[in-house]
Amino acid sequence: VKSTNCRTLPRMGEHEPIRSRENRWFRRFREAIERHDDEIALEGPKQVRDAIDSGWTAIAVAVAHESITFESRGIPLVTFDRRLMKSLSETVATQGVIGLFRRPAADLADILADRTRIAVVLDGVQDPGNVGTIVRLAAAFDAAGVIVTEGTADPFGPKAVRATAGALVSVPVASARRKELVAALEHARLPLYVAAGEPDAGSGDLPSAAAAIAFGSEGGGVSDELRRHGRAVAITTSGRVESLNVAAAAAILLERAFSARR
Amino acid sequence: VKSTNCRTLPRMGEHEPIRSRENRWFRRFREAIERHDDEIALEGPKQVRDAIDSGWTAIAVAVAHESITFESRGIPLVTFDRRLMKSLSETVATQGVIGLFRRPAADLADILADRTRIAVVLDGVQDPGNVGTIVRLAAAFDAAGVIVTEGTADPFGPKAVRATAGALVSVPVASARRKELVAALEHARLPLYVAAGEPDAGSGDLPSAAAAIAFGSEGGGVSDELRRHGRAVAITTSGRVESLNVAAAAAILLERAFSARR
Repeated sequence: VKSTNCRTLPRMGEHEPIRSRENRWFRRFREAIERHDDEIALEGPKQVRDAIDSGWTAIAVAVAHESITFESRGIPLVTFDRRLMKSLSETVATQGVIGLFRRPAADLADILADRTRIAVVLDGVQDPGNVGTIVRLAAAFDAAGVIVTEGTADPFGPKAVRATAGALVSVPVASARRKELVAALEHARLPLYVAAGEPDAGSGDLPSAAAAIAFGSEGGGVSDELRRHGRAVAITTSGRVESLNVAAAAAILLERAFSARR
Repeated sequence: VKSTNCRTLPRMGEHEPIRSRENRWFRRFREAIERHDDEIALEGPKQVRDAIDSGWTAIAVAVAHESITFESRGIPLVTFDRRLMKSLSETVATQGVIGLFRRPAADLADILADRTRIAVVLDGVQDPGNVGTIVRLAAAFDAAGVIVTEGTADPFGPKAVRATAGALVSVPVASARRKELVAALEHARLPLYVAAGEPDAGSGDLPSAAAAIAFGSEGGGVSDELRRHGRAVAITTSGRVESLNVAAAAAILLERAFSARR
């Protein structure tokens, strides 16, 4: 009974770690790290476990040969030799464990249906570190989810995932084109607030619930398309800087909305 | 009269750009970028001009051969060929202009003497991107200055400077050992607030003026030495994350203090 976790499938490469770069599993993991299309990779035992617990569909878990043991819970384990594992780790810091998952996709309408929490819209945020940091903030301040539009860095790419510091698995993430998002907001009768890049660009009070807040690109701010549909909300600054970093603006506005509703 | 800017010194390498890696100017610029001890480097024409306008002591300005013209204002201009300039740009994105400056050092007592504004203390913040982002926030929310203790990344290193997005020249930065800082705070009768890593670790109301706020390392928070001396102030989060990014915490607390005093 104790060994039910490993019952369903043999541990691939248990006796013989995979050593070839041509191996199909190795190529599949590498592609998930580099391209993160349908399949994505998560690094580190804790994050992999959290993702499984959150209901993400695990395809396989790669472990370094002679690394820490990882409780497979019926998920195929693939053992790479040190050299192969290291070449995957050039992109991600693995701690000897990398999980291969089906890319989860939350439903746009589900996120917008939440009548008590804020939906975060990332509209052309190009820097993956900023995207990941904002996903982490969405978890910290209990947002309903994150919606990414055209031109936003993929939240499931390795740099963004690292910046989420483990929060990605607890945040529903949906993709939407701007047009589709505007229609869905109207359908859900959800007001859109737009974080203005310039200081004092607007003074609409931020609502505490049932709204979406959009953050734009580091250079140009939120797109005209969303700006036209929404109401500007600005953070007053000293005027000693031209703008705030987009993740700093998100920290301030999401915390403000969260503390207003407590 | 029009040419007074270039009067004092000839433009070194004007006719012949410097091509050798053994050249003393080249080595001096490279050392300022890599080590940033007594001399530091700033990238880009706008930032170099702003630093000069802010009273920083310029030693020389390097320009790429055939690059944009840079008004020297009596400061020696050094021309490097493209290859040398590029090898400096491996560290910094120059836009063809790098300024070499004496490292400015603000006085600790001067920063703490400000009775209307917040002093920001960085106590072991190791990531230069976070340090630079917080310097930018100190400018955005009109702090009196930034004080860095042992173990904090150098705000004048290239990565930190980049993250300040030009704000570094407008923010007084002082270095102090913890012991010296505690004595100076007592001397100035300035209360110290300590941003707590854990949610709900304290609930001291943040003052709007005449106080110092300390932010600690990404892993361990503020040192025991400063923690003992200060009062914890925490940001309430949802509990869906273990902690906030230190720059996000600084954004929230500095904005809160700034908007309370307006």
